[in-house]
Amino acid sequence: MATATPPESTSPEPSRRRFLKRVTTLGAVVVAGAARPEVAGAQSGAAPERPAPDDPTKELGAPIRPYGERARFEKAVRQQFPTKTNESSWTFTPLQDSRGIITPSSLHFERHHAGVPDIDPAKHRLMIHGMVDRPMILTMDEIRRLPSVSRIYFVECSGNSLTEWAKPAAKGVQGTHGLTSCSEWTGVLLSLLLKEAGVQKGATWLVAEGADAAVMTRSIPMKKAMDDILVAYGQNGEAIRPEQGYPLRIVIPGWEGNTQVKWLRRIKVVDKPYMTREETSKYTDLMPDGTARQFTFEMEAKSVITNPSGGQKLPGPGFFEVTGLAWSGRGKIRSVEVSTDGGKSWKPAQLQEPVLRFAHVRFRFPWKWDGQEAILQSRCTDETGYVQPQLADLVKIRGVNSVYHLNAIQSWKVTAGGEVSNVHA
Amino acid sequence: MATATPPESTSPEPSRRRFLKRVTTLGAVVVAGAARPEVAGAQSGAAPERPAPDDPTKELGAPIRPYGERARFEKAVRQQFPTKTNESSWTFTPLQDSRGIITPSSLHFERHHAGVPDIDPAKHRLMIHGMVDRPMILTMDEIRRLPSVSRIYFVECSGNSLTEWAKPAAKGVQGTHGLTSCSEWTGVLLSLLLKEAGVQKGATWLVAEGADAAVMTRSIPMKKAMDDILVAYGQNGEAIRPEQGYPLRIVIPGWEGNTQVKWLRRIKVVDKPYMTREETSKYTDLMPDGTARQFTFEMEAKSVITNPSGGQKLPGPGFFEVTGLAWSGRGKIRSVEVSTDGGKSWKPAQLQEPVLRFAHVRFRFPWKWDGQEAILQSRCTDETGYVQPQLADLVKIRGVNSVYHLNAIQSWKVTAGGEVSNVHA
Repeated sequence: MATATPPESTSPEPSRRRFLKRVTTLGAVVVAGAARPEVAGAQSGAAPERPAPDDPTKELGAPIRPYGERARFEKAVRQQFPTKTNESSWTFTPLQDSRGIITPSSLHFERHHAGVPDIDPAKHRLMIHGMVDRPMILTMDEIRRLPSVSRIYFVECSGNSLTEWAKPAAKGVQGTHGLTSCSEWTGVLLSLLLKEAGVQKGATWLVAEGADAAVMTRSIPMKKAMDDILVAYGQNGEAIRPEQGYPLRIVIPGWEGNTQVKWLRRIKVVDKPYMTREETSKYTDLMPDGTARQFTFEMEAKSVITNPSGGQKLPGPGFFEVTGLAWSGRGKIRSVEVSTDGGKSWKPAQLQEPVLRFAHVRFRFPWKWDGQEAILQSRCTDETGYVQPQLADLVKIRGVNSVYHLNAIQSWKVTAGGEVSNVHA
Repeated sequence: MATATPPESTSPEPSRRRFLKRVTTLGAVVVAGAARPEVAGAQSGAAPERPAPDDPTKELGAPIRPYGERARFEKAVRQQFPTKTNESSWTFTPLQDSRGIITPSSLHFERHHAGVPDIDPAKHRLMIHGMVDRPMILTMDEIRRLPSVSRIYFVECSGNSLTEWAKPAAKGVQGTHGLTSCSEWTGVLLSLLLKEAGVQKGATWLVAEGADAAVMTRSIPMKKAMDDILVAYGQNGEAIRPEQGYPLRIVIPGWEGNTQVKWLRRIKVVDKPYMTREETSKYTDLMPDGTARQFTFEMEAKSVITNPSGGQKLPGPGFFEVTGLAWSGRGKIRSVEVSTDGGKSWKPAQLQEPVLRFAHVRFRFPWKWDGQEAILQSRCTDETGYVQPQLADLVKIRGVNSVYHLNAIQSWKVTAGGEVSNVHA
């Protein structure tokens, strides 16, 4: 971020906040711009080092192209968690670079248990069987021909923030909260498929199975399946990306990511949960008394400030827009508050419309930094009245061994020098 | 699209529509799938020809990656209009492949007058001058630090459908309607920048100028500028794509695309329109009496069925979901109706929530095709009560020389053989 001065006290319109410094000599700024260091010579041949023309109006631009790419100056990437392999691994969305509520599909966080399978949609099949009157096997063409719906939903890994239970670990918001992303999903309601198959009396659960090498499998209660679960093939206007389950996945609004089985190939209708690996040895929450919570499907209300956030540096006192994301697995976000004094006082943030159920909500809060040390926090409340907890209050109940489902308030400390870092406040 | 039988009259639940055929022998369909022709040998070395594994669960998948790409089986691309050069040209979004309302940024339609400039955001500046108290030059960092908003808006080229005035010309919906796309845009309200600059008395217009080699320039009334125009740097959660104006563009909700100056470098506040090339010799609408309409900014309400659409083939009678997009430059879409008999009768389509002002709206309509010839049409009404016109009624007033602003009802003919084509009905 570049220089910006505080509001001028001599403004002729004192009631209006002034964000921008006055430019009295236009030439001065132009010169400052031209004085930036540039790559000399531009003869290295390395494309990324090629400087852009000083005056782009003097050169014919690039031609149209069939499928676009981002600008060569944009460098945001997903960051890997240091796992033993690159196939059973995960990557974090660079939330510090996020705008609005849609996550670019290329930057949607990843979590794979045996890598991303290579699936030809023409060969892919979805089998629905078990306690149904009419077992069926569907092609992708058959699925895409059915009545469809589109919904903007977040997907959050239940392990999001898992490093943050005991002490601040990740440096920035990509590491602390980058296991959540938000897309427009398109597909068929699972309830439609189940009605077609004819669910038999006594069927209370289903088992969803992926076509990856881990054969990822989760048990899902029939009640949710008959409510709002999607069998999705579209993401942000095109086919679901390979890392997100191409060509078919389950999307379960508000539930932990691992239940939303990717590369979906089979749904078995059953009368009990199947106690798969991913709901017994993994994805349960170890409590202080040694027992474990199981089937903690809903992601509880959570929010985080994405700017300013850990690892950034404020250039100096003045106006900053504090902005971030909030979401809840129990429905709609009702409000977000921001504190700049470590939770001593709270003020309401503005929520960007549309505020959608089970979707990321963008919040914004105007902040005039006086140059003193500050602790920035956000706290959300969802439509059920649930309030995002302080970490200490969460730990009192949950201990520090849960791994999953940490939804506490995140604190970013701003030093007098402008450095922003992850703290427990 | 693959086979699907009509609803079974012997269904045990007659009130419920049945979409899917019963699979009595599960093995049969699996065998049918395996019997598909495959690329033999797979030794050609050409990556796109490599067959996917028959059973992806038996192979370790691909590793995580920093920035994702779409699946190798997805082939949808923007289609070029046959222009003399590839720099002053345009491409159409493949609407027949669209899902939901968000257009993937890589498939957003293009219109460039001198190609896509190569702009380093660190060097880019926005100058605001003319009839202002405080002229200023802003860096991208300064702009990104200001209070921001995000909005889902369509952008439509006023030349969308220009080939369709006299007789059906384009084969499919990509050619007839592919010059509209919809994104989540993030940026600063232009009104905020103008208030910072201090607009002087008597200033009624502004002139926006691009940094491309065409120095694309348009006059914009002050009233709209002080209302809802964005100076945008974000598109679908990341930086605006080069083809869409990287790093900065104007987004004018509901107005013709060419006014929404891309690669924005200058805003001059003035007291009259500047009568630039793009608002005199181009982008005016020639009327039957030889005069031309000028400054026809608002895109009138329009809709189109994207599936089934021209060039497709229905595999046979049965259930089809008729789906498409509607939008209006005057605000919100109130309703969409669908006709399957060339406009003799109309039935309401379902609108996908959220229905947003100045955004694409996805509509859906269940259709049981009886195998007879049919003419599919959609007709939208916006919140002002404006109804999308029949082409004949539009031509009565506008003649056939307007080039721009054709928003008439589109007809797709379905033959008894299932072929879908563009007709004037």
